Amino acid sequence: MRKIGKQTVFFDNPITIASSASIVGPKEADGPMSKYFDKCLDDEFWQEKTWEKAESKIIKETVNMSIAKSGISADKIDYCFAGDLLNQCISSSFGLRELNIPFYGIFGACSTFGEAIGLASVFIDGGAAQNAVCAASSHFCSAEKQFRFPLELGNQRPPTSQWTVTGAGAVVLSKNGSGPYITSITTGKIVDMGIKDANNMGSAMAPAALDTLITHFKDTGRNPSYYDGIFTGDLGYIGKDILTENALLKGYNIKNNYNDCGVLMFDKNSQDTHSGGSGCACVATIFSGYLFNQLNNKKLRKILLIPTGALTNSTTAQQGESIPGIAHAVSIEI
Amino acid sequence: MRKIGKQTVFFDNPITIASSASIVGPKEADGPMSKYFDKCLDDEFWQEKTWEKAESKIIKETVNMSIAKSGISADKIDYCFAGDLLNQCISSSFGLRELNIPFYGIFGACSTFGEAIGLASVFIDGGAAQNAVCAASSHFCSAEKQFRFPLELGNQRPPTSQWTVTGAGAVVLSKNGSGPYITSITTGKIVDMGIKDANNMGSAMAPAALDTLITHFKDTGRNPSYYDGIFTGDLGYIGKDILTENALLKGYNIKNNYNDCGVLMFDKNSQDTHSGGSGCACVATIFSGYLFNQLNNKKLRKILLIPTGALTNSTTAQQGESIPGIAHAVSIEI
Repeated sequence: MRKIGKQTVFFDNPITIASSASIVGPKEADGPMSKYFDKCLDDEFWQEKTWEKAESKIIKETVNMSIAKSGISADKIDYCFAGDLLNQCISSSFGLRELNIPFYGIFGACSTFGEAIGLASVFIDGGAAQNAVCAASSHFCSAEKQFRFPLELGNQRPPTSQWTVTGAGAVVLSKNGSGPYITSITTGKIVDMGIKDANNMGSAMAPAALDTLITHFKDTGRNPSYYDGIFTGDLGYIGKDILTENALLKGYNIKNNYNDCGVLMFDKNSQDTHSGGSGCACVATIFSGYLFNQLNNKKLRKILLIPTGALTNSTTAQQGESIPGIAHAVSIEI
Repeated sequence: MRKIGKQTVFFDNPITIASSASIVGPKEADGPMSKYFDKCLDDEFWQEKTWEKAESKIIKETVNMSIAKSGISADKIDYCFAGDLLNQCISSSFGLRELNIPFYGIFGACSTFGEAIGLASVFIDGGAAQNAVCAASSHFCSAEKQFRFPLELGNQRPPTSQWTVTGAGAVVLSKNGSGPYITSITTGKIVDMGIKDANNMGSAMAPAALDTLITHFKDTGRNPSYYDGIFTGDLGYIGKDILTENALLKGYNIKNNYNDCGVLMFDKNSQDTHSGGSGCACVATIFSGYLFNQLNNKKLRKILLIPTGALTNSTTAQQGESIPGIAHAVSIEI
């Protein structure tokens, strides 16, 4: 690999995505992406007693499914990179405690899936690993309970709010294989433009997405038309508009080939999610389901995936803090 | 680099630790390691209004100090790998939001410092980076408030409990330099032996430390006498005894050259910390202070550092879950 420009690593021997897997909840199953997911759950509990235990089960089964689909024996998977939104990342650490694979817990909020792919790609191209599994999860009920209000309160949601996706996505990356390939990563910096509204995460994260997007173009000398599609993680409708407008102000027109996984996840008219989907599982399941399918069927040949995260918690909002954002870009090509 | 055995990566071009920095709170300043820390605070707030803000300031100033001491310009630091114990790792993300360096947030509980060094070493040896900074923080007051009881309650602490270290440690790693060198890493698996007592973290983490220690010896063909010193992160007195006894049962006698950073941090007789120190900052400050000094002064020539983490939160204890542990080993030699 070699570093190009300020923040981009280019893989001369691109990493193969050997398989993907996705499991989602009932609301996601009612949305337009339903047919691309491996498994859709009937309810938010999946026979567990708590939402936290259900989320752990979801990431566990998703990881196991991705390994089974890869055809690679679990004892040949050198590392697992995984994270989630729950306090101290318990969805991952409890869900994956029986995995028996060397484990790197990570926290990039909803950018976690991109962070995992970036780390695993460097490990594989550098020679530290032949194969690695990357995963991220979120759960609407556990996230609302932890970050906002008790679900039982039935509080009103403002129009800027987004709906945390219930589910998990996982990919197995491998040194060997015939693609789709990870060809480069652009690691993001923390960007905080002063947004303090915890119900407007799209606005808080859009500046970080913009910073990483522009840096990626400058580092690689590419422009938006290089990609068939550019997909951010969970900016939702509001953040998507902010990114599109500000990229144009910087001289990059992404209007024709850009979309957001939070926009893609739910039907705007019938599903009442306001500004769209969010959560670690938003980009993880849309990539592992829809986008990986489109790459394998050659409907998309070159994409730039930019998972986005808001690095905040419920205490910082009470302390009057603004919301730092981060975004990591991954180029994936067939 | 090359993978040897099951879980170990050996660096043929070892990574230099260019500098270290450590800042600690007043109780740590009263302990036997005081003279090795760069800065000792007079109180737990450091002129901030909350313990969380103080912890953010501590990690920020520690990272800045480590970069200044390295003599490497901040714009030549390619990545920051950092994490902490607070919900959604806000100490790192708020403390480092103005750092302007590509950022990978990680969560390995109190093993975070070892995880950061492992990831950064692979990035540097693989060619993704020339230099990287690694950091971890914890704070007694913010940790007690979040994981246990309000400090104002003044609750009794059982004899098995440990004292979360207030502070942060950071190291700058570099492709170039004359050591001390990181020569190998052994990445740990999650190990859960069923301990459910949140006031007995040493017992919960010792099995993970044992697993990583034995795996490191088997992967490398080394035995304990290869190292001048073996140092776990924060097993405390109880976990240290468990590890020592169980390593012997497995055929590895570490009695003569093993200690724990949680044991080293406080004076057993006068400081009333029961089973010793804990927290991300325990191993991060003892390494960045005492151990890095001993390596540079050739009083230690080969050490194995094994930061240990308990991957739990306050919800899982209420749900009757046991405590998964993890430990990552790093070989450091002059």
